[in-house]
Amino acid sequence: MEIIPIGTVKDRPDGNKEIRVYDEFSEGLKGVENRGHLWVLFWMNKLSEKDREILLVHPRGNRAREKQGVFALHSPMRPNPIGMTRVRLIERTGNTLIVEGLDAFDDTPVIDIKSG
Amino acid sequence: MEIIPIGTVKDRPDGNKEIRVYDEFSEGLKGVENRGHLWVLFWMNKLSEKDREILLVHPRGNRAREKQGVFALHSPMRPNPIGMTRVRLIERTGNTLIVEGLDAFDDTPVIDIKSG
Repeated sequence: MEIIPIGTVKDRPDGNKEIRVYDEFSEGLKGVENRGHLWVLFWMNKLSEKDREILLVHPRGNRAREKQGVFALHSPMRPNPIGMTRVRLIERTGNTLIVEGLDAFDDTPVIDIKSG
Repeated sequence: MEIIPIGTVKDRPDGNKEIRVYDEFSEGLKGVENRGHLWVLFWMNKLSEKDREILLVHPRGNRAREKQGVFALHSPMRPNPIGMTRVRLIERTGNTLIVEGLDAFDDTPVIDIKSG
């Protein structure tokens, strides 16, 4: 099961993020400007192949708390490093969405956007 | 970017669904029984490669409504056929989760579970 990037995350000086959707997917954005919130799915590409094998983690990295399974948590560690965040859409300009609340690093591949 | 199945969806006679997590990922379920709701990500494997190229669809299949971009909708059509549903956890028995509200077909590959 192969997934493809549809765009990329870029940091902005104001602390918000931009999602720059690639030209070949721009039709898919039609009407997105009418949404107040969106779900963004992204590929957490800073995780290594080894990280994908980790199934138990301390919640929020707090060693005082007993380890829990990754499927019971929102930890970035998981067999498929797909992050999912609900964001507020501030503005659409062409293929660029300015969003608030996206907890993804600069240059993270975006794999999906859904109405939220 | 390659994703792997961590389990599969099975229909139940009572109308709910089962998520059967594969043995090698069972550690990842530790603590999941304490969650009331979960996000389930799944691979919509009934869609063809051709379906992945569709970027404009009628909302809810209603031809009376103007076509919208797939990123403005929850349509199953999208470049990466990843479905995402928030479900209620009814019961965990070993590697099997009985859930309510999962809109995925029998035998759909599950790719992630997150606290919800």
